[in-house]
Formats: sequence, structure tokens, C-alpha cells
Amino acid sequence: MPASVRPPRPTRAEFVHWTTSTTRWADMDGFGHMNNARYFELIDTAIDLHLQDAIGGAVDTLDQIGLFAEIGCRFFQEVGYPAPIDLGVVADHVGRSSIIYRVGFFQGGSEEAAAEGRAVMVYVDNTDPARPSTALPDVVRRAAESVRG
Amino acid sequence: MPASVRPPRPTRAEFVHWTTSTTRWADMDGFGHMNNARYFELIDTAIDLHLQDAIGGAVDTLDQIGLFAEIGCRFFQEVGYPAPIDLGVVADHVGRSSIIYRVGFFQGGSEEAAAEGRAVMVYVDNTDPARPSTALPDVVRRAAESVRG
Amino acid sequence: MPASVRPPRPTRAEFVHWTTSTTRWADMDGFGHMNNARYFELIDTAIDLHLQDAIGGAVDTLDQIGLFAEIGCRFFQEVGYPAPIDLGVVADHVGRSSIIYRVGFFQGGSEEAAAEGRAVMVYVDNTDPARPSTALPDVVRRAAESVRG
Amino acid sequence: MPASVRPPRPTRAEFVHWTTSTTRWADMDGFGHMNNARYFELIDTAIDLHLQDAIGGAVDTLDQIGLFAEIGCRFFQEVGYPAPIDLGVVADHVGRSSIIYRVGFFQGGSEEAAAEGRAVMVYVDNTDPARPSTALPDVVRRAAESVRG
Repeated sequence: MPASVRPPRPTRAEFVHWTTSTTRWADMDGFGHMNNARYFELIDTAIDLHLQDAIGGAVDTLDQIGLFAEIGCRFFQEVGYPAPIDLGVVADHVGRSSIIYRVGFFQGGSEEAAAEGRAVMVYVDNTDPARPSTALPDVVRRAAESVRG
Repeated sequence: MPASVRPPRPTRAEFVHWTTSTTRWADMDGFGHMNNARYFELIDTAIDLHLQDAIGGAVDTLDQIGLFAEIGCRFFQEVGYPAPIDLGVVADHVGRSSIIYRVGFFQGGSEEAAAEGRAVMVYVDNTDPARPSTALPDVVRRAAESVRG
Repeated sequence: MPASVRPPRPTRAEFVHWTTSTTRWADMDGFGHMNNARYFELIDTAIDLHLQDAIGGAVDTLDQIGLFAEIGCRFFQEVGYPAPIDLGVVADHVGRSSIIYRVGFFQGGSEEAAAEGRAVMVYVDNTDPARPSTALPDVVRRAAESVRG
Repeated sequence: MPASVRPPRPTRAEFVHWTTSTTRWADMDGFGHMNNARYFELIDTAIDLHLQDAIGGAVDTLDQIGLFAEIGCRFFQEVGYPAPIDLGVVADHVGRSSIIYRVGFFQGGSEEAAAEGRAVMVYVDNTDPARPSTALPDVVRRAAESVRG
């Protein structure tokens, strides 16, 4: 993507729900920084913890589950072990059956994100083996609205 | 992204370099399919194996290393353990200091991708602790050109 | 354990069931060899693939599941990416409700193992939330007997 | 191992150095509890954090590095996401070139460990490609002595 249209590096002020995740020695790759796949372990955890905080155990009893249709991450600055990482979550879009989340990575007190995840979550009917898309459950919609930017 | 502008599901014919990766029990998550972070372990391996096939051990002696500026994955159909996954690599764009790769996931003989990764790799000068971006090393550029779509 | 009582480094001849697993860039740690946790992803996969080869889909319909009571690995020589790893499985002990497996790691044609996993698997009744231990299902017992050393 | 000789389930009082690690959605496997390989990510992190607390950045400038010769884990009770896990470290043995650590896993305030890791760490000379074993660096020996049980 040309630099001119690349979205700017986000700051803490853009995010609504926060959690802090510890890092692990195994997060580091052969170059001595966090392996790219590990960022995605933190992205889905940050989104899920927002959901658990908003909904509680109710999420486990729903017939609908949220699956990622698309997920990505932009990397601005390396993060690494052993410092913990602050993860901020915001919902950019809440649709009929999908939610677009962004997750900001902040390490060491910086106001500017070291990385930014973006996830398109689609709700499907888990009672049907074909898992067709379905409207957001009300509790999920309310949770997502509570973290709108 | 609205369905109307979402790029179509890719097919095997779009990819140039191929590798096959075995799957692991630990790849599966609580929903019984491949955890989203695990896709990214396969994306960077597929790209790296293409580089190794094209360049060989030479890549380890370069002063420049390729880092991901951005990486993402679109999910079309679940993949899982224990079947292996065919991974196709194509370079969509080869710039002065960056390459955009796509990686297709194919499991079980299907012609249509189960998922598609997209990675923006930027080369940096690893001899400078600030790791500034640098022109693609010639061997890397030639390797990338050899997998143009 | 004193060197004098440490079991010797095993060889390919000791193992019965074989599978080959590809390695991943993310398997490497900050020291440039396979992170110790990754060995355990291959240990449980090797054991499970033996079970699937012996039993097939039947394992998924059983009311009993095998859980690890104890698992370990001895490391003799580094293994790493990108070469694949041959994994050999043998059952050292088949008891009333438990099986002790060993898994040998071989990379690059060596006759001597680079590492050896050891796993104590206990079968539990998955229909009871307390998951009490239970006798090995007959199909599991026959499978384990088929890979006795 | 017969139950009669199996070491008892350890308690918090046996451990000296403590850290708390957050858990991740990706830690869970297809059975809905922590995948066995993930325990080992926490074991080496707990040991390394003890070292960093005792030695600080000095560990990165040493010519010697500690490698695992053997590592294992006994599982007593399932742990899982999303609660954090308290990890206790104790050195059972400090030898000329090796240290035997135990790491206790405690979740949810229980006094009894949910799991116990055991790691045999051997120091090697990292300036020699053959990585021969070497005497413990003084700072490492003092650190290990400070967490003797």
C-alpha cells in the first residue's frame, strides 16, 4: 500500500477496552523479536476478553459463535519479551452479522501503537454443521456497541 | 469490506511456488479447527521456503533481512488437522524495498483456496540497529520476480 | 539424573510407528533452534497419528479420551527448521488404564535420535465431568499393543 | 510410574520465585483445556524471569547460555483460559554445569499445584559452535542458589 494512503499509526486514545498480556520467551523468533503469528494470539485474546467482560459466561451458552472472516496486523515497531503488552480494543463497524474490530499493541508506556490488528468477525449458527452466517446475538451487539470508537 | 468489493476466492492456478506443510494436533483450537494464529506460521514458512529454494543458504549471509510491515489472512473454509496443507506463493508486487506476497491454503485436493494470506515484506539493513529500509538485495529481487503471478 | 543412570540415546530401530512432520519458521527460538515447547507439539501429534492409523475415525466416537498425566523430553542434539523431522513411536508399557509412549526425533538421516519424548497417557471417562480414569478402550489397547517395542 | 513412588502434588510453600502469566485463547486445545505444549512455554518463561530478576541484562552479555537437557511436566488438574496462572520456581539441584528447576502451576488461588514442570538446564559455551558444557557462570550460580528450596 503506498505510504500516502496507509492509515496513520494509532494512539492509545482511539481504543476503548483494555487488557494487559504478559509475553513469553517462546514469543521471540530467530530475529529476537515477537514472531508475527504470536501477535494474532494476542489479537483474538483481546477481543475475546472484551466479550467476556461485557457478556460474561453467557457467551458460552449461545447457539451462535463468532468466526474470523479476515484478520490482519500492521507492524510499526518491534515488541518483545519480557515486558507485558497493553492491548486496546475498539469496534470500527457493527453490522447485521459482522463486527470489525481494531486492536492496538502498546509496550512500555508509548502513546503510539507498536502494531495494530484488524479483525472482521462474522457470527454463524453453530447448531447447523454448515455454520451459515446469522444476525449478531443481541448480547454481542450490545457488547460491540459499548466499544465503538 | 462489502461483499461486492471483496476479492474473489483464489484458485491453485494463481500461485507459482508450492510447498506442503503437515498439520499438528496443537493447531486446533477450542472450536476444533485451525486457530487463526497458526495460519500465519504457515504463511511465513511458505514465503521463506520459496526464498530458500530460490536463493539457498545465501539468504543467511545477507546484511539485509525481510520484515513484515503488514500481514493478513482471509478465511473461506475451515482447514484442520490431520491432513497436510498445500501452500502456494505468488508475488503480486515487487517494489524498490518491498514485496507483496499472497499465500494460498489448499487442503484435500480442492482447487479453491480455503484461506489466503497476504504479506507486505520490507527489507531493512540489519547491520544498523535502527533497521532502516533498504533496497531489495539483488538475489531477493530475482527470487521475487521468479514467482510473479 | 547422574550420567551413569541416564538411559542411552535411542536409535531408529527402537521405534515402530513412523510419521514425518514438516518444520516451521516459527518453531525456531531466539537461539536459532527449535523452541522446547514445539517438541511437545510433535510428540502429541506423533502419538495421535499412530492412533488414527490404527483406529481411524473410531477414536472420535469413544466416550473415553486419553489425557497426558506426565510428559517429558530429553534433548541430545539440536533440530531445526527447515528440514522435516521423522518421528518414531513405541509403547513401552500398556497398563489397565494407561499407556507409556516414547517418541524419537530424527532429522537428516541420522540413526541416533536428536531428542526423545516420553508420555504417560491415562484414559478418562469423558461422559463424566470429573473425568475419572477408566480402563483402556479395547480399540486403544489393541492399537497400543501393535506398537510395543 | 506406580502411584506409590510418584512424588506428591506440590504446594505453593515449596516454591521461591514467583511470576504470574496471563493465558491466551490459543492456549486451549480441541478438548477445551490448555494444550500440553503450552505448559512448556510457561515453564521456560518462569525460569528465565527468575534469572532476569536475579541477574538483569547481564545474562545477555554472557558467553555461556543455558540449554535444556531434559524437561518434563506432570499434570494434576486442568488449567485454562482466561484466568492467569501463578508460576513458582525452585532450584532442586545446583551442580557444576547444570541446574535442576521445578516450576509449579497454580490457578485460582489453590494451594496445590495444577501441574509441575521439571527442567534440567545445562550451561554451554556459546562461543564454540559445538557448544560444549561449561561451568555455571558465577552470576547464574548465585541466582540459582537464591531460589534453592
